[in-house]
Amino acid sequence: MENKQIKDLNNGDHIKMKLLIFQVNKGVTNKGAPYLSLQLQDKTGVMDAKYWNVSEDEINKYKAGMICMITADVLSHNNQLQIRVSHIEMLDRNNEDLADFVRSSSIGKEELKYKINHAIDSIRNDTYQRLVKAVLLEYETDFYTYPAASKNHHNFVGGLATHVLGMVELGEFLCKQYPLLDHDLLISGILLHDIGKIVELSGPVIIEYTIEGKLLGHISIMQAKLYEIARRMNIDNEELTLLRHMILSHHGEYEYGSPVLPMVPEAEMLHLIDNIDAKMNTMEKAFERVEPGTFTPRIFAMENRSFYKAKNK
Amino acid sequence: MENKQIKDLNNGDHIKMKLLIFQVNKGVTNKGAPYLSLQLQDKTGVMDAKYWNVSEDEINKYKAGMICMITADVLSHNNQLQIRVSHIEMLDRNNEDLADFVRSSSIGKEELKYKINHAIDSIRNDTYQRLVKAVLLEYETDFYTYPAASKNHHNFVGGLATHVLGMVELGEFLCKQYPLLDHDLLISGILLHDIGKIVELSGPVIIEYTIEGKLLGHISIMQAKLYEIARRMNIDNEELTLLRHMILSHHGEYEYGSPVLPMVPEAEMLHLIDNIDAKMNTMEKAFERVEPGTFTPRIFAMENRSFYKAKNK
Amino acid sequence: MENKQIKDLNNGDHIKMKLLIFQVNKGVTNKGAPYLSLQLQDKTGVMDAKYWNVSEDEINKYKAGMICMITADVLSHNNQLQIRVSHIEMLDRNNEDLADFVRSSSIGKEELKYKINHAIDSIRNDTYQRLVKAVLLEYETDFYTYPAASKNHHNFVGGLATHVLGMVELGEFLCKQYPLLDHDLLISGILLHDIGKIVELSGPVIIEYTIEGKLLGHISIMQAKLYEIARRMNIDNEELTLLRHMILSHHGEYEYGSPVLPMVPEAEMLHLIDNIDAKMNTMEKAFERVEPGTFTPRIFAMENRSFYKAKNK
Amino acid sequence: MENKQIKDLNNGDHIKMKLLIFQVNKGVTNKGAPYLSLQLQDKTGVMDAKYWNVSEDEINKYKAGMICMITADVLSHNNQLQIRVSHIEMLDRNNEDLADFVRSSSIGKEELKYKINHAIDSIRNDTYQRLVKAVLLEYETDFYTYPAASKNHHNFVGGLATHVLGMVELGEFLCKQYPLLDHDLLISGILLHDIGKIVELSGPVIIEYTIEGKLLGHISIMQAKLYEIARRMNIDNEELTLLRHMILSHHGEYEYGSPVLPMVPEAEMLHLIDNIDAKMNTMEKAFERVEPGTFTPRIFAMENRSFYKAKNK
Amino acid sequence: MENKQIKDLNNGDHIKMKLLIFQVNKGVTNKGAPYLSLQLQDKTGVMDAKYWNVSEDEINKYKAGMICMITADVLSHNNQLQIRVSHIEMLDRNNEDLADFVRSSSIGKEELKYKINHAIDSIRNDTYQRLVKAVLLEYETDFYTYPAASKNHHNFVGGLATHVLGMVELGEFLCKQYPLLDHDLLISGILLHDIGKIVELSGPVIIEYTIEGKLLGHISIMQAKLYEIARRMNIDNEELTLLRHMILSHHGEYEYGSPVLPMVPEAEMLHLIDNIDAKMNTMEKAFERVEPGTFTPRIFAMENRSFYKAKNK
Amino acid sequence: MENKQIKDLNNGDHIKMKLLIFQVNKGVTNKGAPYLSLQLQDKTGVMDAKYWNVSEDEINKYKAGMICMITADVLSHNNQLQIRVSHIEMLDRNNEDLADFVRSSSIGKEELKYKINHAIDSIRNDTYQRLVKAVLLEYETDFYTYPAASKNHHNFVGGLATHVLGMVELGEFLCKQYPLLDHDLLISGILLHDIGKIVELSGPVIIEYTIEGKLLGHISIMQAKLYEIARRMNIDNEELTLLRHMILSHHGEYEYGSPVLPMVPEAEMLHLIDNIDAKMNTMEKAFERVEPGTFTPRIFAMENRSFYKAKNK
Repeated sequence: MENKQIKDLNNGDHIKMKLLIFQVNKGVTNKGAPYLSLQLQDKTGVMDAKYWNVSEDEINKYKAGMICMITADVLSHNNQLQIRVSHIEMLDRNNEDLADFVRSSSIGKEELKYKINHAIDSIRNDTYQRLVKAVLLEYETDFYTYPAASKNHHNFVGGLATHVLGMVELGEFLCKQYPLLDHDLLISGILLHDIGKIVELSGPVIIEYTIEGKLLGHISIMQAKLYEIARRMNIDNEELTLLRHMILSHHGEYEYGSPVLPMVPEAEMLHLIDNIDAKMNTMEKAFERVEPGTFTPRIFAMENRSFYKAKNK
Repeated sequence: MENKQIKDLNNGDHIKMKLLIFQVNKGVTNKGAPYLSLQLQDKTGVMDAKYWNVSEDEINKYKAGMICMITADVLSHNNQLQIRVSHIEMLDRNNEDLADFVRSSSIGKEELKYKINHAIDSIRNDTYQRLVKAVLLEYETDFYTYPAASKNHHNFVGGLATHVLGMVELGEFLCKQYPLLDHDLLISGILLHDIGKIVELSGPVIIEYTIEGKLLGHISIMQAKLYEIARRMNIDNEELTLLRHMILSHHGEYEYGSPVLPMVPEAEMLHLIDNIDAKMNTMEKAFERVEPGTFTPRIFAMENRSFYKAKNK
Repeated sequence: MENKQIKDLNNGDHIKMKLLIFQVNKGVTNKGAPYLSLQLQDKTGVMDAKYWNVSEDEINKYKAGMICMITADVLSHNNQLQIRVSHIEMLDRNNEDLADFVRSSSIGKEELKYKINHAIDSIRNDTYQRLVKAVLLEYETDFYTYPAASKNHHNFVGGLATHVLGMVELGEFLCKQYPLLDHDLLISGILLHDIGKIVELSGPVIIEYTIEGKLLGHISIMQAKLYEIARRMNIDNEELTLLRHMILSHHGEYEYGSPVLPMVPEAEMLHLIDNIDAKMNTMEKAFERVEPGTFTPRIFAMENRSFYKAKNK
Repeated sequence: MENKQIKDLNNGDHIKMKLLIFQVNKGVTNKGAPYLSLQLQDKTGVMDAKYWNVSEDEINKYKAGMICMITADVLSHNNQLQIRVSHIEMLDRNNEDLADFVRSSSIGKEELKYKINHAIDSIRNDTYQRLVKAVLLEYETDFYTYPAASKNHHNFVGGLATHVLGMVELGEFLCKQYPLLDHDLLISGILLHDIGKIVELSGPVIIEYTIEGKLLGHISIMQAKLYEIARRMNIDNEELTLLRHMILSHHGEYEYGSPVLPMVPEAEMLHLIDNIDAKMNTMEKAFERVEPGTFTPRIFAMENRSFYKAKNK
Repeated sequence: MENKQIKDLNNGDHIKMKLLIFQVNKGVTNKGAPYLSLQLQDKTGVMDAKYWNVSEDEINKYKAGMICMITADVLSHNNQLQIRVSHIEMLDRNNEDLADFVRSSSIGKEELKYKINHAIDSIRNDTYQRLVKAVLLEYETDFYTYPAASKNHHNFVGGLATHVLGMVELGEFLCKQYPLLDHDLLISGILLHDIGKIVELSGPVIIEYTIEGKLLGHISIMQAKLYEIARRMNIDNEELTLLRHMILSHHGEYEYGSPVLPMVPEAEMLHLIDNIDAKMNTMEKAFERVEPGTFTPRIFAMENRSFYKAKNK
Repeated sequence: MENKQIKDLNNGDHIKMKLLIFQVNKGVTNKGAPYLSLQLQDKTGVMDAKYWNVSEDEINKYKAGMICMITADVLSHNNQLQIRVSHIEMLDRNNEDLADFVRSSSIGKEELKYKINHAIDSIRNDTYQRLVKAVLLEYETDFYTYPAASKNHHNFVGGLATHVLGMVELGEFLCKQYPLLDHDLLISGILLHDIGKIVELSGPVIIEYTIEGKLLGHISIMQAKLYEIARRMNIDNEELTLLRHMILSHHGEYEYGSPVLPMVPEAEMLHLIDNIDAKMNTMEKAFERVEPGTFTPRIFAMENRSFYKAKNK
């Protein structure tokens, strides 16, 4: 029983397993009894949980980020599995390997690094290469651990670099198809476009928006950072302007937070590629939990559409 | 002088050359004098023209599609070259090679056919392959000559097949990147999605919307045709439904004439690829006429944006 | 007690009556106890129900469409009557007359048929009459039993034909008022416009969207069917195009699933009449449950407006 | 020649006829020469005109509303007939019968009055009948001469009453079809809804928006007038509120100037009937000038759509 | 304990205090037990309450507007304080001073009256001053007790006059800054613009929309009233039209119920000032309940935005 | 004649005066003759001009920014005065005082500087004051000469500082009215919000968008600049974040280029004040050219509304 993981749980299981508290909220039942509503996670997934019989002295004790030994039953609520906690025992985080409790990219960090570095080397324009290197140097550690979003797609450790790498591969192919595209500008834009998320989001494990993230947004954070780094390097040329434009316009529409719309072909393509990689990842996740011949629930990030999983899949 | 082509014309040229009348409209000047406003074309391009001193008996004589010997001056009006016609002589179309007067794909028809056939062969699902073959058989000749649109992108002879081939190449790459995608469904959707344009548009040379095209639209025309062909072949299964869905949803938004939005990943991808290939072709065309360091005019098909051609291009 | 019907129930009633399960969903209470949430119906109406003390072996036993003997109390929850089930006994559907359990049109089937046939006979144009007859022949049985919608209006047995008949009567009057209208085209469009719902919806009693219905929509289903039938009859003329256009455009706006907007007066009128008949039926239903001098709840199908029932009504 | 009327004019005609100046604007040609751009009208129609060789002392002489003897040629400009004025002679309006120069309803004024009075008599509710009579008494003369709009539909003498009568006939029919509707409220609303146009527009012949019309709009003008009249009659009951609501909501959408949306079934129906009668009249007018088998120009008042006139019309 | 007030309550308090029932709704728990959901208020604030153990004979006894002795516990539910009622005892409203139970303006009624009268005196244009005086005379009592809105801003006794006074002070300053503005028209518009709320809302304490309020809206109510009063005074000039326009347009957008948009500078400014005063009051209220360094919940009346309370506040 | 200025010109004047070419475009008449379309300006205003008889060697000679002696007639075209140039003589810009040819603020530069400095001194928060001083130091010269916009409002020399000063005065007043507002944050935001226009626009006299301006926008330019300056000063605190947020959000809506919406009360107020000052200036300009009792043309920057100038103005 002890070696079970989130992905293995079934309706009716009795479990005692170590899990990380991803989220925790207090509630009170109709009858006035307090309870805790949690999200519990290990490296294989995340699951909703309720702790109905929480005692008064426990009620403020558990925080997001703690690792605990959970004794519980698994049951099905509204067609989704749920953990009913009967007992929680806090563990010393120093004795645990955090890696066991966080979902992470299917691509190893070394492979990510190798391929990203390869992409940087493929940039021949001097300004672009120097700027990309300077920015990545500043955010090196976080770049390989941060997620690409808090909820919709690539929201796991290494998600940011995984998303960027997927886009680099698409970008390389499209540069060959469409000679109109400036390879160096497109690849540089892909590498930098989402790095502001390292400031916008709170961390690779517990993903929340920071105050700065809410008040400025990752697009403006990154654009200002790039400008500041460039000025320190005494760079102030059209390439810098174009790269700033790539970052500013990559959401493609005003209402998604881009203050300018794409005005060079590479910016348009950056937006289109970003879309493709995010959407494919989002649909992949949604299809995991759905039977062939049925529809997913409505997906907010896909304009609230449901998707059909064909019978022969 | 006689061997000049549209693409070679310069401000101040005096010309006498054979051109096809692509469009013709009658007008009357402020002073009450009639004149003709034309678009004249050869295989290298198209140019606006005015025939100010048209005589009364000439006024109803010239029609779109005629090939004529044009005597004229070339001058610059609002920063665009314009042909000022001084004399028109109608030629016998039977003595001319129409190919000299129509813009066409940079890919030869044989290459297009070879590659399209190769794509069909790559479809392993029997239903999909039979349906695609049956439809293409019915529209074979036109498929390789029709344009993909009347104005924005690929509006030349062979434009439809050229657009489809570009999309097939993207589709093949993306199926490798994203295992979620059903290769056979995506490629089949790409091959069929725009064939309704053969009914919607009037022809490969003079491109106008037909009455049927306006009242029904190429999406609904193709969907009904596919259903009718399938029923004749006694096909009525989920593959047919999915393929009809691909056609119906490929414009991606209600206001662009899709009665349903994409609900399978392949339909979403078909829409995204269609977008990419159309947009890149549109920007390529717009950049042809623009100096580095300046902006294109606003492009209606690109949400009315201007695009900047970088100085180092 | 046994002869009571849904429409007669009052707060505080103890009932034992035969009802059809229209919908059923599983739930779990705060305390972890499973329960069933149902919609129970007879020919006089439909009512929400809860079965709190459902046993483990009953939990997966009841399905939509079953007829059961229900022992229960009726009480008022949030100002609406609700059935609290204490016991369910499954009955053999073969021993019951389904007609006792389904809501249906206030107009008898024979009268519907007679009047619809009369409308068909009033079409003098040969193409229109032959097409309408051929389509109705193919869907004859279902046409007189299907509902016109799953929720908003005419969602009862015979609702589709009732809706069509109401529109035919309006159409006949309007053709006399406005000589611009082509009577035969308008009446033909009215008769055919919603027949695709027979494929889009699952059936006359348990009304759900089919997979084909979701992926294609009744508009495109009908348009393709009409084209296929016409081709089998060797019809391919402007009348066919106009009738296909009527079907495609009858929702009147892109975002309601019409890929083209009305472009002939008859199509515009078809859309307007459809609207009138659906809206009047929707308001009639909403007013049934509301006291004079008060407002209905917001009605989603009426752009989320509330309606006021005047004091003197 | 002298007995020709606007509707009889053909390309190439030389004319000398009495016409009313419906609109007049000054212009200057490229070469600096002044000219006048006019709309000239008789009771059979209206036509654009240019007066190129206008002299300096004539330039400020002609005003909308004057009746003149026009010497001119008729020619075709952009596929529309146009009058090229060579000479204008002002006539004394007192010697002319204005009725010869204004387009008017095809229904005679006496018939309009008789039918409108019949509609008033059909209202049995005392409050409604008294209010309708009081309002119509106040605007009696203008009610039978004003147009219903400045441009789109029923923009001729008697257009307002003609539009109202068409709506009354629809309303009577629909009250029989849908018992939900309160006949007296609906007919009263139809009779009063547009009377504010008598203040909003400048007059039956020369139709312009008044300052009050622009700043307040006919909806608010009529609602305030109705309230003021009712208060003078000491009426202050729910019927008054409902009738005010009918007037306020009859445009059906905020952006068309209704401050509240329809909230009683009669208000919804008033809006729908208004729409039908206005749209049918608009399409009828547009079809007059169009050949079977072709499309009308885009019609702003029909959401900018073109309409197709079928070949067999 | 008895002298505690709403604003003093803390988690864990046991209370017995007099409170006014601001709102009351019946509910039924999962287990079928009835309960009451209330809003209880005194002059210092308002708080949600639950009465779980309500007896059958109490269930229909309590109404909005009653003053009761409440025995209860205070506890924290979803981070908000809530009153858990254990016992309710109805009190005789005649023995209580209503003023103890209603929230009211921080500005005394006498000061409000003095300053409003001062504003009226500052109007030098005779028509404006007479109209403003006549309207205020008709609504004098209510003008100083009504709220300015049911929920968002100034929803307390005297809120209407407080809002108007705040706007008058802004208006006076802006007239000095921008000579374009007609002081008398702007101040008159400010004084009258929201008086229709006295008819639209049910009263100063229990604030609900009246039927007339819902069917007509305060904008149209006031406009008609102003017109009626003016006609009684034999006023019918441009000033009256301008003042009616100010009232009609002051919501600034069609979808907020203005049938015309501002077309004079004073109307534009009235709309802008209304906005400023309402928004500042709304944010002030939201910030009361929020810790520095955190965000408010989303505020519907502020386009659903959250607001950040800076750390140094 | 020579001392005439733009504001003094009348229909029929013959002029010979020095004017600056504000804009110049080439055209060709119907007859093929080239001409120039110009905007000519002095310090009192700007006027459209045509140079019909331009010779071939003059056609490319005149550029925006040149000062010339213009011989011409003034005439009225479409109710607006227009200059018909008969002769142009280029003057040496070094011999002319540019100040004679540019429109500028009605407030002198010294007064602007004095009042702006006073506003800076009123900021007590150390971070805000240091940041504002550092930015203004960097742009000191341009801050007092640049316009606030290219077309709509304050588009004259010194317009930027004039606009900012007007907003400062409003801001000071509002801080007193609404204690919720942090004076130092609001005034700092007002002072900095538009300084990015110095990079976005080409200069104080000839106002065009720069390439950087188009690709980045003044909002993002300023935000990055502020961040860069702050980092050089080793400032990185919440005040910096709030000030960056003020700049980013001051357009108030995504579609006007703000990547985040206002989330602190000062940001909301900055947006509202910006609106007031810009709109009042825009209406003031529009009313200059309009007679009392008439409407302005539609003003694009005022949501395309016309405004009415009351008769008593």
